[in-house]
Amino acid sequence: MDLVIVGSVAIDDVKTPSGHREYSVGGSALFASIAAAKFTSTGIVGVVGEDFPEKIVGDLKKQQIDLSGLEKVEGKTFRWKGEYCDLNKAETKDTQLNVFADFCPKLPETYKNAKYLFLGNIHPQLQLDVINQCKAEIIACDTMNFWINGTPELLNKVIKKVQILFINEDEIRLLTKKQNIFDAADEVLKQGPKLLIIKRGEYGAIAYSKDLLYFSPVYPVRQVVDPTGAGDSFAGGFLGYIVKHNTLDSKIIKQAMIYGTVTASINIESFSFDRLISTNIEEIENRVDFLKKIISVE
Amino acid sequence: MDLVIVGSVAIDDVKTPSGHREYSVGGSALFASIAAAKFTSTGIVGVVGEDFPEKIVGDLKKQQIDLSGLEKVEGKTFRWKGEYCDLNKAETKDTQLNVFADFCPKLPETYKNAKYLFLGNIHPQLQLDVINQCKAEIIACDTMNFWINGTPELLNKVIKKVQILFINEDEIRLLTKKQNIFDAADEVLKQGPKLLIIKRGEYGAIAYSKDLLYFSPVYPVRQVVDPTGAGDSFAGGFLGYIVKHNTLDSKIIKQAMIYGTVTASINIESFSFDRLISTNIEEIENRVDFLKKIISVE
Repeated sequence: MDLVIVGSVAIDDVKTPSGHREYSVGGSALFASIAAAKFTSTGIVGVVGEDFPEKIVGDLKKQQIDLSGLEKVEGKTFRWKGEYCDLNKAETKDTQLNVFADFCPKLPETYKNAKYLFLGNIHPQLQLDVINQCKAEIIACDTMNFWINGTPELLNKVIKKVQILFINEDEIRLLTKKQNIFDAADEVLKQGPKLLIIKRGEYGAIAYSKDLLYFSPVYPVRQVVDPTGAGDSFAGGFLGYIVKHNTLDSKIIKQAMIYGTVTASINIESFSFDRLISTNIEEIENRVDFLKKIISVE
Repeated sequence: MDLVIVGSVAIDDVKTPSGHREYSVGGSALFASIAAAKFTSTGIVGVVGEDFPEKIVGDLKKQQIDLSGLEKVEGKTFRWKGEYCDLNKAETKDTQLNVFADFCPKLPETYKNAKYLFLGNIHPQLQLDVINQCKAEIIACDTMNFWINGTPELLNKVIKKVQILFINEDEIRLLTKKQNIFDAADEVLKQGPKLLIIKRGEYGAIAYSKDLLYFSPVYPVRQVVDPTGAGDSFAGGFLGYIVKHNTLDSKIIKQAMIYGTVTASINIESFSFDRLISTNIEEIENRVDFLKKIISVE
């Protein structure tokens, strides 16, 4: 296996301007791994309860996602209930940790030699536990304001150990207390990461390193059905492409930004990952070509 | 003369996080014409009072801007007082129309054969008056929420007569009552304009027509000193480049987006147009090259 993905597995209850789904399977590990598995061999580390639908387990296996790190334990799967009035911001209505409360991520032996590791947005202590169990050369991590405010010391320990950090623009300002996004990015680069992916919602994303500054726009989606998992499916598509090419060369990073943008654009066109799981590489490549056309100056 | 620019000429009082300038010369006609004059022969139509500084008149003449349409009348120049807490949004503290209250734009004979006309953000009735005085083949226009809410019928008459419309993303949603930006853009294209330039502040701009969809990012400015005139200096740079090449070919439109982005980026690095007026084509080309590099996927 080339890419290990650790994160939440959830059953969401989501309301958006397009509708309402009460039993919407999600979680950072699933969105990211489904996107990544379009490009590279991927394994999940996570936990579900007895109520987790067997049908979804079968669907994930069909995507060639390795589930040997997905524990099933007594109790109910993690639940998140949220509502989007503005498509850029979810309002959390309820969170029930359930089996996630006692989750201790354990990497199967077959995962331990993966070169790439993605730490989805979970408690920084869990992220550290995973880092300590594997020998990944390239570690990427996502986080959120909840951990920046709640467990800043632990989060800083994680940030020091990762090469790639995914972070929203509001969150990098919160993390660094710098208003200018480039000043904020410089500050984070001093702490360890070599590459930042700054996510800007409907305005796209920025890749930023010592040698690279790259802006990517979003793919022009006509109807955003459910933004849940946009960031995770972006990270998964981005990393899947990087792992496939096994390099952090600037040209590959730029291409990966486009691929991540496309996997995210497909994901938000349905509730859960209905669209993302059923898409194929041809649809992805078509959107990549379209996106390259609309950003090309020539 | 190739490009006629009609708009406000103002003495602003501006507070930003970078400082405060009490006597800051501005107005849409000046920002736009200084940017446009870097590329093409440009003339202004506007009005100033007796208090308008002679030094500025001299500075504009040095830029080869034709001022035969800039009337000087009894009274005080238009005043605007504003404050930026968030750099994306100005809060108007005071407006004194002064000589602008009775302004009737009159095109000098030498302006009447210009092929291109830019109607800066002023009362739609004044924009119509100017349209009726000239034979421009390509008319571009800027507007704002104040006119969308206040004089929608007049504004619609203007929109029907222009080929290019510059508009903020919030304003195109307000104008069309459509939330999705592309749906909103399609709606406006039905009304007459062939090309929309949708401005998104620090997130760049979109060029949109039947045949073109193009996203441009902003130039990464480290310190925004004063955002006043960003949209006008963008429009001026954009149109200057279009007029210089005398075509609305898609490739030239994309290039013009980059040039407009650059003239705006220089303008916001100082109060008034201190930076923009003193920049040269070499600095502009350097920024264009840099911008092309950071958006190129290859």
